[in-house]
Amino acid sequence: MCNNAMTDQDLNSASKRETTDILEDLYSLLREKELDGLIVPHDDEYLSYELTPECERIAYLTGFTGSAGFAVITDPQTSFQEEFSIEHPLSAKGLDGKDFEITKNCAVFVDGRYTVQVDEQVDLEIFNTFNLRQVDPCTYLNALMPRNSKIGIDLRCISYKEFLKMQKLLESCDITLVGLSESLVDTVWEDRPKPQLSQVFIYVDEYNGCPVMQKRQALAETMRAKGIDATVISSPETICWLLNIRGNDRKGLPVINCRLVAYANEALEWYVDRGHLETDGIESDLENHCGHLDIFQENRFDEVLDRLCNSSATVYIDPKTTNALTLKNLYEGGAHVIEGLGLCELPKAIKNETEIENERKAHIKDGIAQCRFLAWLDDVTALNNNFEEDAYQRRVEDIDEAVLAQKAESFRKVEGDFLEPSFDTISALGPNAAMCHYNHENAPKPRALGLDPLYLIDSGAHFIEGTTDITRTVQVGPNVTDEMRLAYTLVLKSHIALATTVFPRGTSGLQLDAIARRPLWDHGMDYAHGTGHGVGHLLSVHEGPEAISSRHSDIPLEPGMVVSIEPGFYKEGGFGIRLENLVVVEPCITPMFSHMLCFSPLTFVPFDKRLIMRDMLTAKEREWLNNFHQHVKEIISGNGTTLSEMEINWLNDATATI
Amino acid sequence: MCNNAMTDQDLNSASKRETTDILEDLYSLLREKELDGLIVPHDDEYLSYELTPECERIAYLTGFTGSAGFAVITDPQTSFQEEFSIEHPLSAKGLDGKDFEITKNCAVFVDGRYTVQVDEQVDLEIFNTFNLRQVDPCTYLNALMPRNSKIGIDLRCISYKEFLKMQKLLESCDITLVGLSESLVDTVWEDRPKPQLSQVFIYVDEYNGCPVMQKRQALAETMRAKGIDATVISSPETICWLLNIRGNDRKGLPVINCRLVAYANEALEWYVDRGHLETDGIESDLENHCGHLDIFQENRFDEVLDRLCNSSATVYIDPKTTNALTLKNLYEGGAHVIEGLGLCELPKAIKNETEIENERKAHIKDGIAQCRFLAWLDDVTALNNNFEEDAYQRRVEDIDEAVLAQKAESFRKVEGDFLEPSFDTISALGPNAAMCHYNHENAPKPRALGLDPLYLIDSGAHFIEGTTDITRTVQVGPNVTDEMRLAYTLVLKSHIALATTVFPRGTSGLQLDAIARRPLWDHGMDYAHGTGHGVGHLLSVHEGPEAISSRHSDIPLEPGMVVSIEPGFYKEGGFGIRLENLVVVEPCITPMFSHMLCFSPLTFVPFDKRLIMRDMLTAKEREWLNNFHQHVKEIISGNGTTLSEMEINWLNDATATI
Repeated sequence: MCNNAMTDQDLNSASKRETTDILEDLYSLLREKELDGLIVPHDDEYLSYELTPECERIAYLTGFTGSAGFAVITDPQTSFQEEFSIEHPLSAKGLDGKDFEITKNCAVFVDGRYTVQVDEQVDLEIFNTFNLRQVDPCTYLNALMPRNSKIGIDLRCISYKEFLKMQKLLESCDITLVGLSESLVDTVWEDRPKPQLSQVFIYVDEYNGCPVMQKRQALAETMRAKGIDATVISSPETICWLLNIRGNDRKGLPVINCRLVAYANEALEWYVDRGHLETDGIESDLENHCGHLDIFQENRFDEVLDRLCNSSATVYIDPKTTNALTLKNLYEGGAHVIEGLGLCELPKAIKNETEIENERKAHIKDGIAQCRFLAWLDDVTALNNNFEEDAYQRRVEDIDEAVLAQKAESFRKVEGDFLEPSFDTISALGPNAAMCHYNHENAPKPRALGLDPLYLIDSGAHFIEGTTDITRTVQVGPNVTDEMRLAYTLVLKSHIALATTVFPRGTSGLQLDAIARRPLWDHGMDYAHGTGHGVGHLLSVHEGPEAISSRHSDIPLEPGMVVSIEPGFYKEGGFGIRLENLVVVEPCITPMFSHMLCFSPLTFVPFDKRLIMRDMLTAKEREWLNNFHQHVKEIISGNGTTLSEMEINWLNDATATI
Repeated sequence: MCNNAMTDQDLNSASKRETTDILEDLYSLLREKELDGLIVPHDDEYLSYELTPECERIAYLTGFTGSAGFAVITDPQTSFQEEFSIEHPLSAKGLDGKDFEITKNCAVFVDGRYTVQVDEQVDLEIFNTFNLRQVDPCTYLNALMPRNSKIGIDLRCISYKEFLKMQKLLESCDITLVGLSESLVDTVWEDRPKPQLSQVFIYVDEYNGCPVMQKRQALAETMRAKGIDATVISSPETICWLLNIRGNDRKGLPVINCRLVAYANEALEWYVDRGHLETDGIESDLENHCGHLDIFQENRFDEVLDRLCNSSATVYIDPKTTNALTLKNLYEGGAHVIEGLGLCELPKAIKNETEIENERKAHIKDGIAQCRFLAWLDDVTALNNNFEEDAYQRRVEDIDEAVLAQKAESFRKVEGDFLEPSFDTISALGPNAAMCHYNHENAPKPRALGLDPLYLIDSGAHFIEGTTDITRTVQVGPNVTDEMRLAYTLVLKSHIALATTVFPRGTSGLQLDAIARRPLWDHGMDYAHGTGHGVGHLLSVHEGPEAISSRHSDIPLEPGMVVSIEPGFYKEGGFGIRLENLVVVEPCITPMFSHMLCFSPLTFVPFDKRLIMRDMLTAKEREWLNNFHQHVKEIISGNGTTLSEMEINWLNDATATI
């Protein structure tokens, strides 16, 4: 306690002064560069949202730590020269047709997931904050800036399409968007962390199921069939998939940063910092594992772009994973570019039998760990055994969201070949679960167990065999309301509706999304996130190109794709429910349905039966749930040789027929 | 019989010689124009698929009368100079990755609806026929034509986007696509029909619910808010909607051909052939009805394009309804063009209360006519009353698909203010119903009643109050199989699934499509067409921009939109089932669901209960059906004052509770 001399107010003043200083430096730099403002995108130069510390530019500048968004900084000497001032807010029309107010010369723009978090994290005396659905950077700049202003943006951290779109929008209000090849934030960032280069390791064929040479041949064959001479791959995940290697540059994403150019003759040029290749003998191991690679320092990547521009080669590029600087250089250098979905994206998304077999092994470990965690939690709360409030409060004392998250992870860690969590655990009690992407580490303090009836935990792991991602919502206290039970039951119905859907080949996740929502829609309810995302194999837990969502998901689902099914319901300030399994797309097993596909669960952990309104489930839904629980019981007790008697009893109870 | 001296073979030879002659003329013309081939699009210069006779270019050239597709004609001297010949077919890879064969220098390309029909209509000794999903004109030309070939296309009959796409695809195989501003088919078309100009008539406010001046003001306001100076409208339907006028240029589409330029100051320039304005006093009536219009002959339309190019005006254009020639002229002339969904498209699609009220009136008339037709049909077949095969056969003698279609229309004609059918009736017995767009007029001869258990009739009308479109599948003979009953019941479940869906504002038909398909998917079944389309108000029976389909339907459904719900199932060579109602999108009436929408039926005609497997319906589905039938009974018997006793008895039976 004695060390806590700095009060909250002191902290605020300190951070405010610091932010103000940084901004002053940035204003000077803007003037030096003859710019009137700067758009700072969230992502890094690989267009990845999972940032290494030295790329946390928005967090450094504003304090906001969410995984998406923009900051906009304008020179107050320019922006506030107009007819309005901070005292007299400027009002303009937003994207939703409603008026919004500008009172600051700096702003942070976030999506619906982060509207609460951003206001808690940024200094509202310095920044306006906006929901991107209502106000985007262009709308803001159009309202704020005088005509003929010049706004900079780091071309490395944005897609070319988005840059062109912004440029066009701003042009229509006589503002010039200037593409920069550097980050001005980095220039004013005094103690910017140095990149930590992790060591690359070989991901053996036992786990990946397809030797590198086979992948190289298949890629080259595709290129030749399409008349493509070279393809530039800027996605570290895709390169690690192609070379069957992994690394540890980013928390939760086991890859190393690098780029690659593949040629139609199977040659590969790998642009990677040699700092990743310091393990003894790694270069010869790579040569054995991958065949010959031409390895270059990553900072020589511009040279290959120049070479491609000065050749007659047809160059294939995925604009979704390639930054605007690369594409602009190619186009302006006169390269013959074809844009399209990266040639490795579907082969990466469609897991082979070995990958699926390994994913199953990872999910059994994960299931055992989750069941043990949930059994422990039920033992702590003892809700099922003559519940007594006082004893309950004593038992849960000192347990909060952080303790729960650590406990859940501890059960995973004792399973073999656990590498790391596949993302920051969402451990959310009561009303915190209503924030879809809540993180107790960003909260003033983690919420204590003992106050709320419901707990939501969304967590996952990278095991050497593969990647998991599961959400369960469970009862952890008394006083569950009918509203909560209704919501839980409807979310479960939504989950079952999609999990049992049979669909023809060629169907995209976009088409299936509403099937999951319908049980909630029937009650005037919905959830503001997608229903499911693709999952990588010891790669990103959010992997494209497929998704189950009302947007950006027109890629047909194919057998071997691994996706999540995770409908939810969120009552702001009340509670949140989400029920997530990973599933693999499979051909429908009935022979007469040879052209139809279905989902097969990978996740084997019970749903909390205590929260179900049994009569609201149809006979078919109950049958699905009972079958699923029967499988959970068989798989977990059949593999969980270390389960205690308490844990086995819990499993039997949790999976009993309803 | 004595006149039938010309045998089928003679007929074939005659038509073949004629086609050959036309093609020879076309080859000469191609050489004269220094072209090696020609792509003939189906649509006319308004990009409409509902063609006036003088625009039936593909039908004239090939005999194919479907409502979509392409013909490709290549000069045999060029195309067959290569290493293959007619005797040695050329094999190439299609869009589906499978090989296809080219044996002819001319081809017709159709979508899935017309693959059977095209082979029956075109001379297969002259034309190859392809399904556009497998082979499109570019794939065909790439395989067939030598490098550096030049292919022409009439820019008036294709969208600019499609032209650019084709041009790029062909460019990548070194073929030049040359945009023409005329149709070469018209040049060789000796007895080409003259356009028949219908007379414009005023569609009074009693029916349209929104005076022209109000529409003009709203349009101008939208333009000013978006910074648009002029918008070019090339869709006759949209212009007729804006001016509250109608015409009769096309069968089934009560509009006149014309173009219009609207300015932000509410001025309108109307480009229309004066031949449409010959009714006494029409010009002054129009002035009263529409306010002042600057009327120009349509052939002076190029002048306004020139003027817009030479001004600094921002010109708004809907690329979906504007032909490539117009857009190319604007772009190449340096106009400042903004492309987007036409500014009148949503206001046209979202019907006002008066329009909906009138649509309901039209549907009551239509429902009475359909009920009387179905009652008559049941009386003829007498399936419900001690069915005897011999008596049945005597009664149905001389009744075929054509007679049935005429009979159905005759009941509509006796309702007041019937204008015309809203499309060619699909009157299909037995296996003919498996062809989604079957037309007995294109068949060798209409199929006779008495052979099949099932009959499908898809028909609609333009009444002065509005437009209808309904499909029913009914029992017309003995020997209904369990497979038919299963399919009928599943299609009904599909219909009910969508009809009962509640969905949030912002949801598109694309998202809802799979909800209708799911009951069929569960049995490995599906249908190869969209689930629903928008419907115009005394305009096109297929109206955008909304649709319920897995493609091109990302426009959110809004209260007031009228759409069809028409799932189906088709067994090739067996039977076809489709069950279609029109519905209007409405806010969900429960107050707590204020943000949710639902569908309210406009169509009131019973479904055939004899074909339902009752036990396969859930209690809720039966409840919906019984409620719907109760409404049908109330509405039809309450309004059908002319119903006979037989018809009333039929209605009572047909709507009795199941």
